Order: sequence, then structure tokens, then C-alpha cells
Amino acid sequence: MDNVILTGIKPTGQIHLGNYIGAIKPALALAKQPNVKPVYFVADAHGLTKIHDAKEFRQLSYGIAATWLALGLDPNKTIFYRQSDIPEIFELNWILANFTSKGLMNRAHAYKAIVESNNEIGNDPDFGVNMGLFTYPILMTADILMFQSKIVPVGKDQIQHVEIARDIAANFNKTYGETFPLPAYQVQEETAVLPGLDGRKMSKSYHNTIPLFTNPATLQKLINKIKTDSLPPEAEKNPKTSILFTLYKEFASPEEVDAMRRQYKEGIGWGEVKKQLFMVMDRYLQEPRERYSELMASPEKIDAILRKGAEQAREYSVPFLKEIKRKIGFYV
Amino acid sequence: MDNVILTGIKPTGQIHLGNYIGAIKPALALAKQPNVKPVYFVADAHGLTKIHDAKEFRQLSYGIAATWLALGLDPNKTIFYRQSDIPEIFELNWILANFTSKGLMNRAHAYKAIVESNNEIGNDPDFGVNMGLFTYPILMTADILMFQSKIVPVGKDQIQHVEIARDIAANFNKTYGETFPLPAYQVQEETAVLPGLDGRKMSKSYHNTIPLFTNPATLQKLINKIKTDSLPPEAEKNPKTSILFTLYKEFASPEEVDAMRRQYKEGIGWGEVKKQLFMVMDRYLQEPRERYSELMASPEKIDAILRKGAEQAREYSVPFLKEIKRKIGFYV
Repeated sequence: MDNVILTGIKPTGQIHLGNYIGAIKPALALAKQPNVKPVYFVADAHGLTKIHDAKEFRQLSYGIAATWLALGLDPNKTIFYRQSDIPEIFELNWILANFTSKGLMNRAHAYKAIVESNNEIGNDPDFGVNMGLFTYPILMTADILMFQSKIVPVGKDQIQHVEIARDIAANFNKTYGETFPLPAYQVQEETAVLPGLDGRKMSKSYHNTIPLFTNPATLQKLINKIKTDSLPPEAEKNPKTSILFTLYKEFASPEEVDAMRRQYKEGIGWGEVKKQLFMVMDRYLQEPRERYSELMASPEKIDAILRKGAEQAREYSVPFLKEIKRKIGFYV
Repeated sequence: MDNVILTGIKPTGQIHLGNYIGAIKPALALAKQPNVKPVYFVADAHGLTKIHDAKEFRQLSYGIAATWLALGLDPNKTIFYRQSDIPEIFELNWILANFTSKGLMNRAHAYKAIVESNNEIGNDPDFGVNMGLFTYPILMTADILMFQSKIVPVGKDQIQHVEIARDIAANFNKTYGETFPLPAYQVQEETAVLPGLDGRKMSKSYHNTIPLFTNPATLQKLINKIKTDSLPPEAEKNPKTSILFTLYKEFASPEEVDAMRRQYKEGIGWGEVKKQLFMVMDRYLQEPRERYSELMASPEKIDAILRKGAEQAREYSVPFLKEIKRKIGFYV
């Protein structure tokens, strides 16, 4: 396929503002560009490295799908599927494992971080590590190579995944001839750093997130929790260092953003900024929030959409996997 | 399925006498017992951990299938398939990885042996280890659990594989409720120790094998190479410690075996034993050898048989995997 743009989100937590601004919003914008083939998926198989509770898993997994759809993903213009519906990815996953040196996995950031923290507290280095967690960069490589993705939009912390995919692809190509184009990463510089309630990166693991589709009352409460400095209302404020402004400009109209920038210059109280931020966010999210609730109430509708997407994806993955297997010598 | 007996042979070398006597012959006998469901497969996906040459891989892989068929496997009474034709095995492989602690893989014999030999010569412990090699016990577990095999016939060196499968199955069952029966191993004591040309265990890795379907001239030459002691022809000989006798009784009629036992008592030259061994072996192997050559000349015939077997296997694996995925929460 030409110009595939691949993005997957794994269901290991509720979708929050950081996911939306850092991944979903730019991906939805990219999908509208001409001459690209967006391939977006619910990375449920990846979620299994962490979530071993069926009810929670189901809820999180449908939650990801409903979020994309509620925010305007058009399944007629995007190949939108659930990873676990594409068996070829798991067949490719095994094939690629045989072209992945174990050293490459030993050096993967996520694994190394666990080993380090185990060492710090005197645990066995591999304490708590399951083989899904250790080998998921290979599955990620299968995700990418299955659709011959040339560009993978990533946050800075995910660059290594694309490098691993390149390494494995090159190894396979060297053995059986040109099969996989080497994927390149495209870092989303600006958006990768949305701070959470406490000022650190907004992330599930820090418990500092604002869930995207929470109810208005909770949204207001969470916005009120966002840390600010102690400048008095009348003092001039810097939009560039203000989390509130960063969020505001994602949801407000250009005119509103200009007006807010002027207010920052002239002096505005943080309480007032928070009030206005809640207003534009709630206005923007009201409709998607409703669509989200509707979808979550009828998972069979989500299933139907994802199944159709899987059919489209498999139109590509089935013949391509056959070609790969022929090259290896699985059959004549 | 009831009373599944599962056996797979991986295509990493030509089938030799050790494979035949240690695995294929007893498996063919087992398959004829009442109340068992033999599930035998060409473990081609496992072969990929070692063989990265397409032509060789194809040859070895069809070779395994042709060997079983030439020796009398009845595809109407056995579910006989090529592992790579069953996508569900690879989906299950990923699922199970998430219920496999990395420590379990660190302790797998085959991996540990490589690490030890790397350490001995001062290499990086993981030198030359690909992730197929490191993780294949999980794939083997998927092979076993996919068909709810309760008994797995193994050589002594493979007991650990079944123990690993039990461990992973128990882990999954603990999380989602009773799903996989815990498999048990059944060691083939007597036959596990067929010696090769040099007296060590007959094994591809020792280069001391007698290929099963080699031409008569080569067979004769290899038999002549089998090590014997230097007792003179007239001396009494011990059948129990004689490789020649071990082989002879696998291919001769009961009367011939009795006669040979008498000759051992009365005294017989090793050259004469070798002549008679060649005679019974060649007599026994002539027909299978011809069938083998015919099959190898028409791989499409092998494909047709294996495809039919895969259909039978998938009648089982497709609904069972669905059940497993529902339990995990992949969909409603």
C-alpha cells in the first residue's frame, strides 16, 4: 500500500487529554491529508501484557475504539481495525522473532527500566516480567511491517520501537531479498510533552491525567486541580509556559486564542482562565462525549465497524503473508 | 477432543533412524490404538529458528511430511497438518506469552546450553541467540494446548517442554478459570537412546546419523561404519549391548530376531551381522523409500493432504481460540 500511516493505541487505561492531543488529534488531521492511507488500530493484543482482568480489558478495548469514532474517525476513509482480528500479524510476529537477536530485546527501554527498578530494590532482575512484556517490540514490528508502513508517527519515547522494526526488517530482507520497506519515524515534537495535573508528562503511570470523556463536573474539578504559579491576577503571564494556555489553544477558536493571549498580557486570574478553559473544553467535548456513551452502550455496533475494518486490512495482510511464507519456504 | 496424542517433528535435518525408531514408529503404533485421537504435525514454524535458507527449508519440510506418509500414516485416521497452516496457534502463542514469566524461559535447557557454551568461549551470553530460539517453548506450549492434548509422548530431553506447558496452562487457568487441561508427558524410555555410528546418541548435531531413506548403497556403507568391539567371529556376543542387534530387531521378523539371538550366542562375525542387518533393513525400507521419492516428486500432493489435515485441525482450533479470546475480553 502507498503512504500508509500507522497508529495503534493500547487499551491499558482510559483515554486522557494527553492521548488526545499527543496522538489522536494529529492522527485524525493526518488522515484527512490527500495521498495517505491511514491504518489505525486498537492495539488490544498489546494491552494483554498488562491487563489480565476480562471485564476491565473489554471496557478499555471498546473504549479506545469508541473514542476514535466519537472524535470523528471516518471508517470509510481509514482502515480501522482491532489488532486481535488480524491473525496474520501473529503469524508474522513468530516469523520475525527468528530474525530478532535476543540482544536487541535486552536493550529495549521498557524492559531495561523494569530491570533497573528491580535491581534497585534488590529483586531478581526479571521479577514481574512476563514474556509479552519482554517481546512486545517484535509484535509492534509485525504491526508496522504487515502493512508496509513507511511512516510511523511516534512520541519521542517510542523512537526505539521504530528503530527495532528497521533492524528486524533489514535482517529479513538481507536473508530473503527486499520484502519490507524500512519504516521511518516521525516525531510529534510539540505535542509530545503535554503536562499533567502535577506538571509532569500526562501519563497513566503518573496518575495525573484528565480523562477525555469524563462528566462535566469531574472535568471542572480536574481543571481546577491543575498547578499554576502564584502570580496575582493583575500580573502579566507567559502563555508559553502555561499548561492552561496549552490546553486552551487545543479547544478554542483562533479568535478566542488571540483574546486569551491578550488577557495573559493584560493580566488575568488563574481561576478565570480555568473557568474559560472548562467552557471551551466542555463545548468541544459535549458531542463526542455523547457519541462515546452511545457507542459504549452498543458494543455490537463497534464490533461491526471493527470487523469491516479487519476485512479491509486482511485484503492486504492475507496475500502479503502468503508471499512472505513462500519466500521462507513454508510451501511451494 | 478426547485423548489427543500430539507429536510434531521439526524440519531441521533429514529424518534418520533415530527419529524413526524413537518417535515415528511408536507414534504410528500409538495411532492405531483404539480411543485415541492422533494429532501429528510438521513443526515447520519451529524449524525457522534454525533454517533460514528457503530451498533447504522447503526440502526439509516436505521431507518430514513425505516420511510420515511413506511409513504408513493414514491421514484419514490422523489429524495430520503443517503447523504454519494453523493461524490460531500463533495467536495463542502471543496470548500465552503474557502468562509466561521470563524466568521460566531463562531456565529452558536449550537456551541455557547456548549461554553456557558462549560463556565458555568468552562470547556475550546471548551471542547467536535469536528470539525464536529463546521463545520456542511458548510456541510448543501453544501446539500442545491448542488441541487440549492430555498426553505428549516425548524423549527424556523434552520433559521440560511439557513442564513449561503445564506451568503456563496453570497460570492461564488461574486467571480466567479452567480452560486448558494440564498436559502430561509420557517418556519413551527404551527407544530414547538409539546410538549413532560412533556410539553416542544418534542425533543431527553429532553428525552420526543414518538417514532413513538413503539409497541402498549408502545405507550399506553407513551400516558398515557402525562401531563394534573386536571380539573374534567365534566368540559369544551380547545382544543387549550391541547396536547392530538393537537395529536388527526393529526391522526383522520375530523368527529372524530369535535366529539372530542364537547366532550371537553361538558366535557370528560382525561383518556377517552387518550383512544381515542391511538385508532386513533394505527389505523393510524399499517400499516406503519408493513412496517417499514419489511424494517428494509431487509436493502438490503433499500440500493437498496437509491442507485437508489443517481444515480438520481448524474445525477444532477456530472455535476454541474464540472461546479463549472471549474469556480474556478481546470482544463481547
